[in-house]
Amino acid sequence: MTYRHLIENCLADAIGAKGLDPETYAAALARTVPALEQLRAWRVEGGLPLLALPDARDDLVALGAIADRFRASFDDVIILGTGGSSLGGRSLNTLSDAGWGPSPGTPRLHFMDNVDPHSFEAIFRALEPTRTGLLVISKSGGTAETISQALACFAWLQSVGAELSRHVTAIAEAADNPLRRLATRHGIATLDHDPGVGGRYAVLSLVGLLPALIAGLDAVAVREGAAAVLDATLAATDPSESAPAIGAAVNVALAESRDVAGTVLMPYSDRLAPFAAWFRQLWAESLGKDGKGTTPINAIGTVDQHSQLQLYLAGPNDKMLTIVMTDASGAPVDTAIASDPALEFLTGRSLGDLLDACQRGTADSLAAAGRPVRVIMLDSVDERAMGALLMHFMLETIIAAHLFGVDPFDQPAVEDGKQRAHRYLDEMGAGQR
Amino acid sequence: MTYRHLIENCLADAIGAKGLDPETYAAALARTVPALEQLRAWRVEGGLPLLALPDARDDLVALGAIADRFRASFDDVIILGTGGSSLGGRSLNTLSDAGWGPSPGTPRLHFMDNVDPHSFEAIFRALEPTRTGLLVISKSGGTAETISQALACFAWLQSVGAELSRHVTAIAEAADNPLRRLATRHGIATLDHDPGVGGRYAVLSLVGLLPALIAGLDAVAVREGAAAVLDATLAATDPSESAPAIGAAVNVALAESRDVAGTVLMPYSDRLAPFAAWFRQLWAESLGKDGKGTTPINAIGTVDQHSQLQLYLAGPNDKMLTIVMTDASGAPVDTAIASDPALEFLTGRSLGDLLDACQRGTADSLAAAGRPVRVIMLDSVDERAMGALLMHFMLETIIAAHLFGVDPFDQPAVEDGKQRAHRYLDEMGAGQR
Repeated sequence: MTYRHLIENCLADAIGAKGLDPETYAAALARTVPALEQLRAWRVEGGLPLLALPDARDDLVALGAIADRFRASFDDVIILGTGGSSLGGRSLNTLSDAGWGPSPGTPRLHFMDNVDPHSFEAIFRALEPTRTGLLVISKSGGTAETISQALACFAWLQSVGAELSRHVTAIAEAADNPLRRLATRHGIATLDHDPGVGGRYAVLSLVGLLPALIAGLDAVAVREGAAAVLDATLAATDPSESAPAIGAAVNVALAESRDVAGTVLMPYSDRLAPFAAWFRQLWAESLGKDGKGTTPINAIGTVDQHSQLQLYLAGPNDKMLTIVMTDASGAPVDTAIASDPALEFLTGRSLGDLLDACQRGTADSLAAAGRPVRVIMLDSVDERAMGALLMHFMLETIIAAHLFGVDPFDQPAVEDGKQRAHRYLDEMGAGQR
Repeated sequence: MTYRHLIENCLADAIGAKGLDPETYAAALARTVPALEQLRAWRVEGGLPLLALPDARDDLVALGAIADRFRASFDDVIILGTGGSSLGGRSLNTLSDAGWGPSPGTPRLHFMDNVDPHSFEAIFRALEPTRTGLLVISKSGGTAETISQALACFAWLQSVGAELSRHVTAIAEAADNPLRRLATRHGIATLDHDPGVGGRYAVLSLVGLLPALIAGLDAVAVREGAAAVLDATLAATDPSESAPAIGAAVNVALAESRDVAGTVLMPYSDRLAPFAAWFRQLWAESLGKDGKGTTPINAIGTVDQHSQLQLYLAGPNDKMLTIVMTDASGAPVDTAIASDPALEFLTGRSLGDLLDACQRGTADSLAAAGRPVRVIMLDSVDERAMGALLMHFMLETIIAAHLFGVDPFDQPAVEDGKQRAHRYLDEMGAGQR
C-alpha cells in the first residue's frame, strides 16, 4: 500500500476522554459492514460507475490524443468549471511543475472557478489568446457560472480571430443541455461526462485526468493507486482491515459520541494543498444534510502551525485532525551551516528535515493535548499516491454517509440559492446597466 | 465609511431560534463597553502601538525609498516569513495585478511561507537569481522555518555570485537575535519590527506595507482606510454605533448562547481570498485558548457555493456566516448573447451581474434556512477598503477576546510543538543523512 493509516491517537487509551473507548470504536466499525457489502455489490453489478474507473484503460487512448494536441498547440490552458469540475484537476495538476514557469512542451494550466470579472480581465491581459487552449467543464451543461465564463472567453478568443473549434474542448453529459448546444453551434468537440459519476467523485474520470494528461502526468499511475485502495477495501474480510472503513468509523463515532464538529485535513506538503481543498468539497457536500455531517477544514503544514495550531491545541476540543505526513528526506535543498550557536540545531539539516521534525512534533503535541489526531504517512507525493489518497477519501466519505444515514451523492440544499440568484438576474432586466 | 455592516439576519426576529433575542444581543453589546474604553485609553496612553499605525506617515518615506530600489532592481521578490509575516502582505498584494504576469517596473511578489523543499526547488528553477530580491521577515528573529528558508535562498543567490547585501533586506525586532546576527554577518540591512505589534496585528506596519509598496500600492490609502474605522469606533458614544463592537457582540453571543462553533468569512471577490486567510489566523490565534474561541473558516464566493454551501444550509446549524459583498457592476467583461432560450437569463448580463446575483441569493438563502448571516457591503476593492476591513477585524477580534475573557495578543500553546520538533531535529544528529 502507498500509505500507512494510524488512528491510535483517536482512542481513549492514548488521549483520554476525547478519544473513543474500545466499545464505541468497535460498534462504529461494525456499522461499516453493510456499507462495505453495498460497495462490493455495486462493484459486481456496476451500480456505482465510480468503482469501475480505477481499472478502466480504454478511455485513456482518446484522452491522451486530445491532451497531446493541447500540449503541441498551446502555452496556456484555461480550465473553466467550478466545484467538482475544478478541484480534482487541480489536485493532480499540482504534481506538475509547469505552474511555476514555462516548461517546454507542457502548457500552464489555469483553473478559473469563479465569475469575478477582475480575474478574467487580469488573465486576458496576461495570456496570448492565439497560444491559449480552453477546456469547459460542466456536468449538467447548465452551470450558469461556467456558461458565462465560456461566453467571456469565446469573445476574447474571437477578438483575435481564433477559431473556437481549434481552441476549445467541452465536457458535459451527453443529454441535450446549454453547454452542448453552445458547443455544437461553434463546432466545438464535446466529450461525455458520465451521468452516473457526480462532480465531486469525478476526479478519476476525464474531468480530472484530461487536465492531468495535458499537464504531462501519468494517468495510469493515478488509476493504479486508486485501484490498490479500492481492491484492498473490497477484499477486506473485516472492516478493521480497511483504512477507509476505519477512517469513517472514527470520524462518525467522534461526531456522534464525543461532540466532534469538525475534521481538519492538514498535509505537510504544498503539493497536497489542492487535494485538501478537494476533500473539503467532498466531505461537506456529501455529508452536510439533514442536520448531519461535520465541518471539513483544510490546513497546511508547517504554515498553519503559525495560524491555526494555537486554536487546535487550546481552543474548544471539538475537532478531529488528520496529519498527512510525507517523506521529505533526500531533498537537495540544504541549509548552509549558519555558525551561530542559536542555530546549531539546523546544522547539517535540510528544509525537508525541518518539515519532517515539524510534522511529527505537531502530531505529538496534539495527542499530548488530548486532541484526536490521525496520521496518514505517504511514501511519496506522486500520481500513484494521489490516486490512493483520492480513492481513500471517496470511500471513507461514502461509508461515513452510510453511518450518518444520508445520501452521499446529492446536494439538494443549494438549489434554493440558485433560484434566488436567477430571480435577481431577471430583476436586473435587459439593458438596465 | 467604506463599508456597510448588516447584522439583522443574526437576530431571532429575522431568522428564528438560532438568532439572538433582543435581550441577549443587548447584553452582549453592553459587555463591549469596557473593551471600547480600554481601546480609547490605549490610544491616548500609547498602550497598544497598533492603534498609532493608521495615523503614522513618517515611516513611509524610508519604506518608499527601499521599495523603489526593489522595484528598480528586480523582476521578482521572494518574501520569506510565515503566519503574520506573510498573510498581511498577501492580503494587500492581491490588489496589484503583477502576480498574473510581467508588469513593467513592478516585480512579482512570491510569498514563501512553508519549508517544503519541493517548492523551493521549483521557484529556484523558475526565477533568475540576479533579478530576484529577497525580503526576510521574522518578528522574533528566531523562527526556525524562516531562518532555514533564508539560508537556502542565500546559497541560491551566492551560487551566481549575487551580493547578499544588494539583494536582501530583513525585518526583525531590534534585539539581539539569530536573523539579525545572520544579516549583520552578510552586511544585510535589517529594519525594525516593533516589539509591541504582534505578527498577526502587523499588517499596517512595515511588515504589510513594505511588500505593498514594492507592489506599487498606495500605503497611505491603506492607513487612511484603517484610520476611518478606528476613529469611528473610538468616537462612538454607544457600542451600537461601532461595527467592530457589534460584530464581536454577535459572534460571542452566538457562541455562548446558541452553540455556534464556527465563523465563516466568505467574500465574493477573488482579490479578498488572501484577506480571508489573514482573518483566519487573526481569529484562531487571538481567541483559541482556555477552551474558548470559535473556529474561523475562510471561503470564497461563488466558488464555495459549489463546495461548502450545501453544508452551510443543511448541515449542523453551528456556524455564523459573514458574506462580504462587493460592487461588481460596470465590469467590462460582458457575456455575449447566447441565443439559447435556456440562457436567456444571461442575456445582456455581465460576469459582475452574475456575481452580484449570486452573493445576494446566497445571503438570502442562508437567512431563509435560519442560519445567522452577517453582510458586509464594500463600495470598492482597493487600498482604502482593505485598510478598513483589516482594522475592522483587528478591533472586532480584540473586543471578542475581551468578551471571551482571553488575551488576544499571545499564543502560548504552540511552544510545545516547537520544542518537540527541536528534539526530533536533535535526534537526527549531524551528518546522519
